[in-house]
Amino acid sequence: MPTDTEFNLTDAIALLSRTPATLDVLLRRLPDVWVRPNEGGDTWSAFDIVGHLIVGERTDWMPRARIILERGESQPFTRFDRFAQFEEFRDASLDQLLDEFARLRSENLVALEGLNLQPDDFLRRGMHPGLGVVTLSQLLATWAAHDLTHLHQLSRVMAHQYREAVGPWTAYLGVMQCTGHSA
Amino acid sequence: MPTDTEFNLTDAIALLSRTPATLDVLLRRLPDVWVRPNEGGDTWSAFDIVGHLIVGERTDWMPRARIILERGESQPFTRFDRFAQFEEFRDASLDQLLDEFARLRSENLVALEGLNLQPDDFLRRGMHPGLGVVTLSQLLATWAAHDLTHLHQLSRVMAHQYREAVGPWTAYLGVMQCTGHSA
Repeated sequence: MPTDTEFNLTDAIALLSRTPATLDVLLRRLPDVWVRPNEGGDTWSAFDIVGHLIVGERTDWMPRARIILERGESQPFTRFDRFAQFEEFRDASLDQLLDEFARLRSENLVALEGLNLQPDDFLRRGMHPGLGVVTLSQLLATWAAHDLTHLHQLSRVMAHQYREAVGPWTAYLGVMQCTGHSA
Repeated sequence: MPTDTEFNLTDAIALLSRTPATLDVLLRRLPDVWVRPNEGGDTWSAFDIVGHLIVGERTDWMPRARIILERGESQPFTRFDRFAQFEEFRDASLDQLLDEFARLRSENLVALEGLNLQPDDFLRRGMHPGLGVVTLSQLLATWAAHDLTHLHQLSRVMAHQYREAVGPWTAYLGVMQCTGHSA
């Protein structure tokens, strides 16, 4: 099994740097039928997901990396507000959200590279308010995997809009069977 | 619940036309650690998924649309070979696959628009070898949803590579709990 030391910053940055353009190519000027509906109830739309990614850029990943480097386990991370996007981006356009996500991600990756992290740094420890002790490499790996969990969610939310339109093919489409798996 | 007549060709094409560039931006020149490993056993890698999408462009969607329009229910569709990509693309590069997928998708969308489909056409019926009677609108909706089911799979396969690296955060990442749902 891979260990922390096998985490590779170059690989993580390669993925993190591609997510804004991936979402831009997929979502910009896509008809609202794909972007605005959710999966019912209080689930998230594609629009909400991009808003959530913006909030993460501002309040989660790099702020937590700095806490680990500056304070270690002595200062637990601030809890991440998973619902901040609903209020803040109520009147925003998707274009604005895509632009803002790209701008913040780019800034954060410049800041990350500016930390000039050395191999030992990846083993430094912080305190997650719910999970307990975590390492810097786990935080940075999670930043990348968090992009993927929301790409996974996004594709499911969009596919949901064609749940009836595909007719009997729904049986062959794995995404139509996915009920989400978030804690 | 939406019915066949609510299927909208413009919406479907908007999505279908974006998938090649979405995959290109995400995957081209991404380190092999994201692109080549699978989820273990005989599961698929990101590379395999792009190969599968190419096979679909050649043998599934437009050929089946033409069968519906030309032969109706009298000629069941040829079964789709879900494993053709493993042999054919064994020695290909990912760049070649991304180029080929984009070329074929573009050609197929030109051909689709060239059919000049009218509202009644979407209700025309064909015979799926496993599912029975299906309509043209269901086929075209499935073409779009099939892109999304493989984007859903792709994000899961990529996230799997960081399953250990994220440490305790795996509990918060829905994609890490997804075991796939394909029939």
